[in-house]
Amino acid sequence: MSASSPLDASRKKTDGSTGRVHVFSGKPDRFEGLAVEIKETMGAETFTSRLRTSIDEWKKQGKKGIWINLPIEHVNLVESAVKEGFKYHHAEENYLMLKHWLAPEKSTIPIYASHRIGVGAFVMNDDGKVLVVQEKGGKRVWKLPTGVVNEGEDIWRAAVREVKEETGVDTEFVEVLCFRESHQSFFTKSVLLFLCVLQPKSTLIEKQEVEIEAAEWIPIEEYVQQYPPEKKDQFYEMAQICWEKAKDQGCLGFTHFKSKTGSGKPCYIYSNKLGKL
Amino acid sequence: MSASSPLDASRKKTDGSTGRVHVFSGKPDRFEGLAVEIKETMGAETFTSRLRTSIDEWKKQGKKGIWINLPIEHVNLVESAVKEGFKYHHAEENYLMLKHWLAPEKSTIPIYASHRIGVGAFVMNDDGKVLVVQEKGGKRVWKLPTGVVNEGEDIWRAAVREVKEETGVDTEFVEVLCFRESHQSFFTKSVLLFLCVLQPKSTLIEKQEVEIEAAEWIPIEEYVQQYPPEKKDQFYEMAQICWEKAKDQGCLGFTHFKSKTGSGKPCYIYSNKLGKL
Repeated sequence: MSASSPLDASRKKTDGSTGRVHVFSGKPDRFEGLAVEIKETMGAETFTSRLRTSIDEWKKQGKKGIWINLPIEHVNLVESAVKEGFKYHHAEENYLMLKHWLAPEKSTIPIYASHRIGVGAFVMNDDGKVLVVQEKGGKRVWKLPTGVVNEGEDIWRAAVREVKEETGVDTEFVEVLCFRESHQSFFTKSVLLFLCVLQPKSTLIEKQEVEIEAAEWIPIEEYVQQYPPEKKDQFYEMAQICWEKAKDQGCLGFTHFKSKTGSGKPCYIYSNKLGKL
Repeated sequence: MSASSPLDASRKKTDGSTGRVHVFSGKPDRFEGLAVEIKETMGAETFTSRLRTSIDEWKKQGKKGIWINLPIEHVNLVESAVKEGFKYHHAEENYLMLKHWLAPEKSTIPIYASHRIGVGAFVMNDDGKVLVVQEKGGKRVWKLPTGVVNEGEDIWRAAVREVKEETGVDTEFVEVLCFRESHQSFFTKSVLLFLCVLQPKSTLIEKQEVEIEAAEWIPIEEYVQQYPPEKKDQFYEMAQICWEKAKDQGCLGFTHFKSKTGSGKPCYIYSNKLGKL
């Protein structure tokens, strides 16, 4: 029987002060866990009392991981949940997700999002000039336009958007040329940066004023020469990869095509499916 | 002058009840923001009083985004922070990060981690057999071993680890063959799944008992035939990509090499740098 059954609650005794103590209802998951969302306003004492009764009941039922979703308007209950053994799982702007592992074995509660995704754009025109920017407050060095992929945004769309925002140039996505993974890059999180080849559809530069100091088309040689081999860091390596791509010496990228997941949701697959240049 | 200067605090008047009201100190960031970490235990009233004074002071200083890191042992202060206008930015197991945008213009507070990273493993032996598993509680279909990349784990290492955990087979990473991006896949987050080619270094299967129903080496034809073209979903597409790879008909992947970031941290770059098969 699931903890959400009204029968569970009616079997409970009263605690003499707050009336009947109802076990919180929730959605069972396929890992013997339960997801509870608090939707009603209540005082911390009532919450604590119900939570204690609920935890006893969940343990009897053999529940393992308990999730509590606390919308920010019920922030008065956070302290009580933590006092009853809950820890934070994650938070978004308007809710906090808490978790409590009740089983004796090691917790199998999954991690939340672990990565941020960045995009860089290699945009070269027919004259062999590459679109570069200098960031405000940064070093006076020409860089490829870069940015962060928004929540729910496709990588290829993010690359096109960032180039438009930073330089005003319209482009079309061609392929992912390479990607870089680094850790402990944003708070404790990892970052994957996808370097994308984009085909320019316009040339006029209208740079973004807030973050971009300068934006220009410069000869690819000039861009590459800024990163000498001595340092052999990611900027050098990526410039080399762009150089090889520009000279058609290799560096085959991943083009994208639309597909769908097992549940029918749209998704993109990036591959060099046909071994095409 | 930064809000962390003791001079700021000593200029404040007493509030008549809790003594001098100190402006919270914090680390300024280059976006005119301030990051405050609460390290001392205090009551909610004291906290509220100090926070109000601090916010007034920060506004005068032209601070824009304020971050408060509240370790879980100071959970008694969460409600007060929210009442003073803070919202959640993110949480990890033992702390909650709150944010408050004080400036009139649109908030530029960056998003936290937005993605989870998955790995799938295409492991084929010299006899043209591919290593597949059936998951417990799932459909009776042969799938490539898959798993979630841990916090801070490299993609290539995660693929090798998952194959070892699920099947007991030792492998070596060869290349990323393709990747899939999908949204709203885990809570509201996006998932990137990297399909990796691994070279087997052992053949004996010792399957993991908890999640894996069965693990076997089966002819690649048998694996591919499970996914007929009618559905044309990601499983079909990825099986086709594996098939083409197996038959050397294309699908060039991204191999990896070690590099370093601008700050000297190790990182990996994945590319088809030399256009090599």
